[in-house]
Amino acid sequence: MDDAASQPLATREVPAKTLAVPTTVSPQLQRSISNLALAPRLAMDQLPQTPEAWRAFVSVADAQAAALGPILEALFPHTRTWTQIAGVKVCEITPASHDPARGDRVLINLHGGGYVLNGGEASTGEAILGAHYSGLKVISVDYRMAPDHPFPAAVDDALAVWRAVTADRDPASVGVFGTSAGGGLTLALTLKLKSLGLPLPGALALGTPWVDLTGASDSYAVNAEVDGIFSSFDSIGKAMASLYAGAAGVTDPLVSPIFGDFTGFPPAIFTTGTRDILLSDTVRAYRAMRDAGVAARLEVHEAMSHAEYIYAFDSPESATAFGDIADFFHANLAG
Amino acid sequence: MDDAASQPLATREVPAKTLAVPTTVSPQLQRSISNLALAPRLAMDQLPQTPEAWRAFVSVADAQAAALGPILEALFPHTRTWTQIAGVKVCEITPASHDPARGDRVLINLHGGGYVLNGGEASTGEAILGAHYSGLKVISVDYRMAPDHPFPAAVDDALAVWRAVTADRDPASVGVFGTSAGGGLTLALTLKLKSLGLPLPGALALGTPWVDLTGASDSYAVNAEVDGIFSSFDSIGKAMASLYAGAAGVTDPLVSPIFGDFTGFPPAIFTTGTRDILLSDTVRAYRAMRDAGVAARLEVHEAMSHAEYIYAFDSPESATAFGDIADFFHANLAG
Repeated sequence: MDDAASQPLATREVPAKTLAVPTTVSPQLQRSISNLALAPRLAMDQLPQTPEAWRAFVSVADAQAAALGPILEALFPHTRTWTQIAGVKVCEITPASHDPARGDRVLINLHGGGYVLNGGEASTGEAILGAHYSGLKVISVDYRMAPDHPFPAAVDDALAVWRAVTADRDPASVGVFGTSAGGGLTLALTLKLKSLGLPLPGALALGTPWVDLTGASDSYAVNAEVDGIFSSFDSIGKAMASLYAGAAGVTDPLVSPIFGDFTGFPPAIFTTGTRDILLSDTVRAYRAMRDAGVAARLEVHEAMSHAEYIYAFDSPESATAFGDIADFFHANLAG
Repeated sequence: MDDAASQPLATREVPAKTLAVPTTVSPQLQRSISNLALAPRLAMDQLPQTPEAWRAFVSVADAQAAALGPILEALFPHTRTWTQIAGVKVCEITPASHDPARGDRVLINLHGGGYVLNGGEASTGEAILGAHYSGLKVISVDYRMAPDHPFPAAVDDALAVWRAVTADRDPASVGVFGTSAGGGLTLALTLKLKSLGLPLPGALALGTPWVDLTGASDSYAVNAEVDGIFSSFDSIGKAMASLYAGAAGVTDPLVSPIFGDFTGFPPAIFTTGTRDILLSDTVRAYRAMRDAGVAARLEVHEAMSHAEYIYAFDSPESATAFGDIADFFHANLAG
């Protein structure tokens, strides 16, 4: 039988290309895209190979991220208090824009960084922006991470904070948001709550969520080296996935939530960009939610790389992205 | 002054890559992606250079598209009647799924093809699918095209049909939909109606709409040769844009609707894919609508190329895309 359907699937050759900074975005985002093009890229042979080497790598990267703190503080005034909730390190951020009339509502932020990066002072960037644009207090969770604390430490920490925060508060008045690994962890937390029969958050905001740590998403290939922030799954992505998943493996639904069942999930807004290496993770999770009957909304920003709405915080596109998220929370949270 | 903001913007180098067919889509869509990888691509030196050469090129392409007719007829049973409305050639398609209880509602389809291709029998593919999934009668408009009839012939024909269809019918019960140039033309028609002070359609469905014929969208570069259907703006896209725009130029809002004002537009659903060369056109138009306060919704399908939901009509992803569009019309149309 010469059956076309039995023929091997053909690959597609895409030639090398030079991407100019597009004129279709704001000057601020144009500058961010240009800066990302100039940034050094991590080569395969620069990847840490031992836990000690990872700790050193993380230390340098986190110090760079934390250095943005004073700039964020000047642009987005807030007070912050480091404390512990249920034994988990958190930073409580109260924005100058805080609206006491909405004091019943609170947000929990789960930061990004591949379950390896952005601990400590580096963990609060997205939380500060979320607090500023929503006028709500944000509890930023400095959850334990790989390589020292692989899965399920992050889920356990998020769950412990969730239980404590909702002990004396309507869970429907609490929103959870996160980007990249933080988006994946937001979904994993909600799957975990569902499996425990606990009340779910009132709404979720998933910023370019890392939902498929197996690397199967099409954009891992299509947007490799197109994305200026998360340039290559094959270099650092796959390594962090393995460090985090540990014995559970990358197909566990609490590690890769795309393999979970989103039925019964609260309303959710997804945010990504056209250059995002996790564009496919985002649209696949969005589609799975729609298919499960969830009131989900998708926002895709022109020419944005992975999580760039956090780093290009001076751009109108960042204000739009966080404005959409804030509006979505206020439209859907109780209280 | 050594001001970073005054430095030239940096370009980004993306190496050549081989794209495998992803496992994250249905077997039917996998086969479609593979078939597109095997299809010959149009080289720059194969572009027609004269009106006569264009007519010959169009004749071959349209015959190929029309050859799908019997397959579509078998899979999506319907009756079709070629006729004229207000002097414009149209094909009225009544699906076997037609629901007389919804007989007050009707859809107008404006086909794609860069304002050059898909005339005559080749014009009805999307209309047949839209009719099948919505259960509504669809009037497919075989509007005049370049090179013989450049802008504003297409807008004039769409407007003439609109006036006639709504002469004895509530305009809010009429939906307009189209893909690629047909999506752009749907927006141009609505802009034109607004400028004339006429009632607008009840809802719009914009499939990967061609809204920026200047070629500025970032995905024209990022998804060049990634997209298996519209592989390169620089080859055929730019040529068709020039043929169509003629003396008006590509920045006229009725040629490139991204330069128009969408304030007051009816609810609109946008459909695109992660490999789509018009991904940026789609998300830019969606964003402009949201900024104008329109109730817009965005759907992005994993690994889909430009308009592939029409051509991969045997895939569940195509059924999902048209199902979303049908649901959107029924949620928003009067009648």
